[in-house]
Amino acid sequence: MTPVPGRFSIELPDWVNQVPGPGPYDSDEAKISLAIELSRRNIEHGEGGPFGAVLFDDADRIVAIGVNQVLPQSSSTAHAEMVAFMLAQQAAGRPRLNDDGRRYTLATSSQPCCQCYGACVWAGIDTLLIGARSEDVMALTPFDEGPLPADWRGELERRGISVRSDIARDEACSVLAEYGRRNPPRY
Amino acid sequence: MTPVPGRFSIELPDWVNQVPGPGPYDSDEAKISLAIELSRRNIEHGEGGPFGAVLFDDADRIVAIGVNQVLPQSSSTAHAEMVAFMLAQQAAGRPRLNDDGRRYTLATSSQPCCQCYGACVWAGIDTLLIGARSEDVMALTPFDEGPLPADWRGELERRGISVRSDIARDEACSVLAEYGRRNPPRY
Repeated sequence: MTPVPGRFSIELPDWVNQVPGPGPYDSDEAKISLAIELSRRNIEHGEGGPFGAVLFDDADRIVAIGVNQVLPQSSSTAHAEMVAFMLAQQAAGRPRLNDDGRRYTLATSSQPCCQCYGACVWAGIDTLLIGARSEDVMALTPFDEGPLPADWRGELERRGISVRSDIARDEACSVLAEYGRRNPPRY
Repeated sequence: MTPVPGRFSIELPDWVNQVPGPGPYDSDEAKISLAIELSRRNIEHGEGGPFGAVLFDDADRIVAIGVNQVLPQSSSTAHAEMVAFMLAQQAAGRPRLNDDGRRYTLATSSQPCCQCYGACVWAGIDTLLIGARSEDVMALTPFDEGPLPADWRGELERRGISVRSDIARDEACSVLAEYGRRNPPRY
């Protein structure tokens, strides 16, 4: 038999490191604003979907950044939140971030889709901060968010992940709307 | 700022290529039996969870193989189904497998968890074949399957993905039970 594909890799674009400012990222609003700024830069760089995500530790330090890389990396798994989890966990050398006893926050520019929602359950985060709503994504862009549990928020809370949403929602929506105006492909 | 982590990669263990036989994999049962055999070998090799998944094209050819690699690759994203999607899509150069007009089948030894369930929605598959049930995984191993939509099967069917389950369920359960007997860590 021909060998099956044996290797997968994701490279974060270099420009991502230019985006964070000096901080401090000590409020939910500051964390989400960075995720939204990443989503904006991602469309400006033509990398694909208008989505950004940032992982912070409990000292408000940036642990990892993800931006949507589905098209450039040829992977439906390369959503912003997933990319942040992949990069953070492998750099830390553990598959569950908060197994080190610290507390981790994921700030994401839009509500996680069905795939990223499920990934949040296993990633070892304690807090999920959300900018735009799922309904905003579906109204302003060609993206579907997929099927979620009816009580998606309660399911996370019951697993120890606190959720806060509608943070800088208008700012997040402005990037989604800008992306929608570019008449992008649906993928 | 210190640069954020910029690279993630997954390597499929070499032994995986020894597992498929000459086939043919022209029935649902043959496809699932290969996924189950991979799940068995994965625990024999001490790679982690008892889960295997295989992607087939519509000529019953193996497109990619995934096994649970959460611990060796330090990633909560490295579930068997996800690994198969990552490897297949990047090798094909497109994030949605069936965008080439062919039809793809994912055979997985156990019902996908919440993360892999969501991933199935975006991966570009047409058929999902399942061995053990979610309740089997939770009864026989330390693994949780996470929150799913109440009508998880209907949500896939409405998106054009046909689902067949309970294929070689006893055989799949025997591997889950063997794993559970080893008193593995919960992660």
